[in-house]
Amino acid sequence: MESSAIGIFDSGLGGLTVAREIARAMPHESLVYLGDTARCPYGPRDLDEVRRFVLEIGSWLEQRQVKVMVVACNTATAAGLALAQQAFSVPVIGVIEPGARAAVMATRNRKVGVIGTVGTIDSGAYSDAVRALDAGVTVFSTATPRFVEIVEEGLRRGTGPVEDLLSDTTEVFIRPSFYEMARDYLDPLKRTGVDTLVLGCTHYPLLSAAIQQVVGVNVTLISSAQETAREVVETLERRDQLAGGEVQGTLGFATTGDPGEFQRLGSRVFGRPLGPVESVDVRRLAALPDPAAVRLMVERASEEASCA
Amino acid sequence: MESSAIGIFDSGLGGLTVAREIARAMPHESLVYLGDTARCPYGPRDLDEVRRFVLEIGSWLEQRQVKVMVVACNTATAAGLALAQQAFSVPVIGVIEPGARAAVMATRNRKVGVIGTVGTIDSGAYSDAVRALDAGVTVFSTATPRFVEIVEEGLRRGTGPVEDLLSDTTEVFIRPSFYEMARDYLDPLKRTGVDTLVLGCTHYPLLSAAIQQVVGVNVTLISSAQETAREVVETLERRDQLAGGEVQGTLGFATTGDPGEFQRLGSRVFGRPLGPVESVDVRRLAALPDPAAVRLMVERASEEASCA
Repeated sequence: MESSAIGIFDSGLGGLTVAREIARAMPHESLVYLGDTARCPYGPRDLDEVRRFVLEIGSWLEQRQVKVMVVACNTATAAGLALAQQAFSVPVIGVIEPGARAAVMATRNRKVGVIGTVGTIDSGAYSDAVRALDAGVTVFSTATPRFVEIVEEGLRRGTGPVEDLLSDTTEVFIRPSFYEMARDYLDPLKRTGVDTLVLGCTHYPLLSAAIQQVVGVNVTLISSAQETAREVVETLERRDQLAGGEVQGTLGFATTGDPGEFQRLGSRVFGRPLGPVESVDVRRLAALPDPAAVRLMVERASEEASCA
Repeated sequence: MESSAIGIFDSGLGGLTVAREIARAMPHESLVYLGDTARCPYGPRDLDEVRRFVLEIGSWLEQRQVKVMVVACNTATAAGLALAQQAFSVPVIGVIEPGARAAVMATRNRKVGVIGTVGTIDSGAYSDAVRALDAGVTVFSTATPRFVEIVEEGLRRGTGPVEDLLSDTTEVFIRPSFYEMARDYLDPLKRTGVDTLVLGCTHYPLLSAAIQQVVGVNVTLISSAQETAREVVETLERRDQLAGGEVQGTLGFATTGDPGEFQRLGSRVFGRPLGPVESVDVRRLAALPDPAAVRLMVERASEEASCA
């Protein structure tokens, strides 16, 4: 079990910022990552459809016998985390709760900002998570969907590994349009006086230096990617399932889209060459049987009673 | 701010198990502890009454300018944590969420047991907290109120510091009755197959070795006291408010009950002499003005809107 991989998935490339932090925090762990690029983006889709994708990909990861699953996508977490947790027998960790928890702990003036895609912000998932942890913290949220476009454009046009797109000199071409857009998005948020800002989309860590510049140095940025990695470490520690030894873990990447493009762009996000990327047919995913999930849900429903 | 104290309160002595873990984890921090012994136990009281006590004691701690408040009592957390978080400007940490979070991470078979007072179990606060974190974990809960009586009796009859009442040879007199009672309470819980058990009452860490013996070594015990201390450390770390330096923090204890008895019994729980215990008149607590709390709640209500 300790040598099993950590399973991670996202609608595309963004979740690689989470995978990168997990690989950094736990270099001995093996990772299996699936980017569902063929069906990206999840944001505009029906919630039920996203839930179905989450179960499909979870079943695919379950066949690889992962010891924990990470839903490295805010939209998929908001839509399908609870269902995946009920369906699979290993822990399923999303990106929202760890970011919300870090923000609650970090804020001094009890005002937290959240930026994300329209789907994530409209779901209210961050506000709900913050409120559940600390009813005295007020959340101010703004959808900043064009940040995703900026990142995707930057990834496509540049070369080489990229820690932060806009601090990277190869990406100067997108700077002026980014700053104008960022001020439009973030100035109203700044005026609310938030002292903490959650980057509620897995693409955004690639813009963090630039976002920091726009909101000012007194605002603490929370990277869901880093916080989620921290949560995975703690979960494996508490379950005594951390990979031991001195050997580096193996890294396996797969995509439902174009493996060549995923390898090229993904290597930039992950910060090192991904190696060969496996191609996964979406139809194969959709055809996966899900007996374990169904069985478990029925079992749980009948158990769901206090023994008191 | 870094040199301000950590404020902790409970309906009586039980919260000293939490204070003990906080003092262990952060020996440089100063603590202010109030045991509301005059109005103990909170369990059978009306929830609104407990909420009022939480606000009163919070105001008393606020006057001492604490940097964080810890509600070291499960009943008070279930009843009044959210209100206290809204009322006070410093973070308020309860004992339920940290224990629930640790249990979710630790369980391998996704079955978690919780024991606590009738009030705590009936509130459903642990089930709610677990479900919010992991919808796939089933909670089995049992009220074990007589464990509190056993602890109180043991504290009254024995002498000297006590890490675990029943592993302490001075407490042999309560052993036979404890094991009989514990089997009655815990056997049904064992039969559910839980692999993790949350000690959901601040008195219970004083019985942990005996509880472990009854449930068996394969069940992981979660001490809310330890988990809450961990949460306080992380909160202060993230806010950059840990006390620095090499100096030991100062420890201040107060009670609304009999200071002599609190000092004698409290020293046993805390594991070292409490020193002089301050006497706090309940009428003084009830008369405390609460302008900050009220002002903040009004302010927040008008702010409670997304700026999106």
